[in-house]
Amino acid sequence: MTKEKQRTYAIIGTGAVGGFYGARLQQAGIEVHFLLNRDWEYVREHGLVVESHEGNFTLPQINAWRHTHEMPACDVVIVALKTTKNHLLPEILPPVVKPNGVILLLQNGLGAELEAGKIFAAQTVMGGLSFICSNKIGPGHIRHIDYGAITLGEYAPDYQAVGITEKMEAIKSDFDTAKIPLFLEEDLLQARWKKLVWNIPYNGLSVVLDARTDEIMASPHTRQLAASLMQEVAAGAAACDRVISDEFIAKMLEHTEKMKPYLTSMKLDFDRAHPLEVEGIFGYPLRMATSLGADLPLISMLYHQLKFIDLRLSASV
Amino acid sequence: MTKEKQRTYAIIGTGAVGGFYGARLQQAGIEVHFLLNRDWEYVREHGLVVESHEGNFTLPQINAWRHTHEMPACDVVIVALKTTKNHLLPEILPPVVKPNGVILLLQNGLGAELEAGKIFAAQTVMGGLSFICSNKIGPGHIRHIDYGAITLGEYAPDYQAVGITEKMEAIKSDFDTAKIPLFLEEDLLQARWKKLVWNIPYNGLSVVLDARTDEIMASPHTRQLAASLMQEVAAGAAACDRVISDEFIAKMLEHTEKMKPYLTSMKLDFDRAHPLEVEGIFGYPLRMATSLGADLPLISMLYHQLKFIDLRLSASV
Repeated sequence: MTKEKQRTYAIIGTGAVGGFYGARLQQAGIEVHFLLNRDWEYVREHGLVVESHEGNFTLPQINAWRHTHEMPACDVVIVALKTTKNHLLPEILPPVVKPNGVILLLQNGLGAELEAGKIFAAQTVMGGLSFICSNKIGPGHIRHIDYGAITLGEYAPDYQAVGITEKMEAIKSDFDTAKIPLFLEEDLLQARWKKLVWNIPYNGLSVVLDARTDEIMASPHTRQLAASLMQEVAAGAAACDRVISDEFIAKMLEHTEKMKPYLTSMKLDFDRAHPLEVEGIFGYPLRMATSLGADLPLISMLYHQLKFIDLRLSASV
Repeated sequence: MTKEKQRTYAIIGTGAVGGFYGARLQQAGIEVHFLLNRDWEYVREHGLVVESHEGNFTLPQINAWRHTHEMPACDVVIVALKTTKNHLLPEILPPVVKPNGVILLLQNGLGAELEAGKIFAAQTVMGGLSFICSNKIGPGHIRHIDYGAITLGEYAPDYQAVGITEKMEAIKSDFDTAKIPLFLEEDLLQARWKKLVWNIPYNGLSVVLDARTDEIMASPHTRQLAASLMQEVAAGAAACDRVISDEFIAKMLEHTEKMKPYLTSMKLDFDRAHPLEVEGIFGYPLRMATSLGADLPLISMLYHQLKFIDLRLSASV
C-alpha cells in the first residue's frame, strides 16, 4: 500500500452497513468494488441509492460483482457481513486481497480478527467498530438514519495492542475524504470489549425478552440486569488485561436511557428470522475470558438462552 | 380437631387443583365447603364434574359459597389459590377457620406459610405440595390428567422442622379415605426446597424461552442451564441448612427427560395472561437464601427476567 497511488476498496457484503460506507467512499472519488448476492442483477442495472440526513445521493453505476474470484485484488477489503457468515471468509477473501493488502472486519463482537489473522498472516488484519443506524430498505436502497462513526484498530496475534500504524493512517485519510468520522484506536481488543459493554446486555435482553432499549431501561428489573451484565463484561475485559471503568458503564446506562426507543441489531435479525450473532457477541468473548479465569454466570446464561432461541429459529426457517 | 367427630373441609379456590381434591373428599363422604368466584352461580345449580383416568364422577350438589363470611368455620381450610392472590388471605380466611383449625396452603413456591403463620398464630398452618396434572376446562368442570399425590408438612416459626404431628395424621386419614396419596413430611422447608429444584428451572425457562419441558431438555444449552439452576437451588437450600443431593438433581433431570411434553403451570398462566407466581417461586426463596449468605446469580437473573415479563403482562391486560 503506497501513499502515492490511490487505494482501492472492496466491500464484502453490500448491505445497510457495507453499502453505506462503500457508496460514500465511491462518491468521494475512490475506486470501490462491491460484492453482492441476491441484489447483484438489480444493482448492476440500477446502481445504489442512499437516503441520509447527511444528504441523499445516487450512484447510477457501481462495480458490482457476484463472486470474489472475478473481482480485482484490492488494497483494502472491508468485510461487512454478519459474523454468522465468517466461515465463508477463507474461501471468498483470498482472490480479492492484494498481497500486502488490508482485511478490515467491520463487524460486531470479538474473535473474528483472530481467525482472519491465522488465515491471512501475510496481510494486515484490522477490526472496525461501526456506530451506525442504517437499514437496507430494498435492493440497492439504503436508508442511513443516524450516527456513522467508525473506530479502527489493527490486529496483532493474540490481540496485542499495536498502536497507530501507517496503514491505519492511510485508511483514515480515505474516510476523511469521504467525510466519515473514523477514530484510530491503539488497542483493538480494548475497543472490542468496550463495545461489548453495550452490545451484550442490550442485544441479549432485547431478543430474550422481546424488548426495545427503552423498555429495558424503564423496568428496574431489567435496568439492574443490564447494569450487572455490564459489570460482568468489565470483569471479562479485566481477565484480558483491559480496563473498563465504572464511569464508562454509568455513561453507557445514562446514554441508553436518553436514546430514542431502539431495536438492537440482534433483535432486527431475530424479527427477520436471520441467524443471530450469538457466537461473535457472546460465545467468543465468553470463552476467551473464562479461559483466562473469569467467572461470568450472567453472560453465560444469556448465551445459552440465545443459543436455544437461535437454534430454534434456524430449525424453523 | 377431635378424632371422634368427622373433620369438615373448606376449599378456598375451586379450580383445577382445589376443585379436584375437594370433590374427591366430598365423594368419599366428607363434608366440604367450596369457595367460588366467577363460577359460583353456575356451580350452585349444576355442581361439579370431574373427568379423571381414576374414574369420572359428578357431584350434582355441593356447598358452594361466594364469600367466606357466609361459610361455616371448618376444621381444615385448604387454600388452593395461586400465591399471587395471597394478599387477600388476611381478609378472607378468618371467618372460615375454626379456633383450633388447620390452614393448609396447597400452593407452589415458598414463603406463604411464614406470612400465614404470623396472622394465624393461634391456628395450625401447614404446607401442601401437590404433584398433579389437572385443568379446569369449564365452569365446575375439571379434567384430571395425571398424578395427584400431595406432600404435607406442618409449619413452625422460621420453618423449623416439626416432625409428624397428630393433626397431620388426621388429615392423612381423610385423604386415605378419598384414595388420594398423601405423604407426611417432617421438614416442610426441605420439601419446599426440593420441589423448587424442578419448579425454578422449568417454570422460569418455559416462560422466558416460550418452551415446553421436552424442548428445554432437547437442547444441550437449556439442559445445561436447567442443571446449573438446580445446583443453585441446592445452594439456596444449603444456606437454609437443608441438603439436596446431586443424586436428587440427576433424578429430576432424568425424570424430566422421560416426561411427555409438558407446559409448566407458570407457562399456562403466561399463555392465559394470568399473573405469574414469580414472588412465590423465585422472589421469596431468593431473598431467604441470599439473606443467609447464598450467591444465586442465575436464579436472580431469571427472577428479574420474569418480573419484567410479568409486569408487562399485567400492564397489557
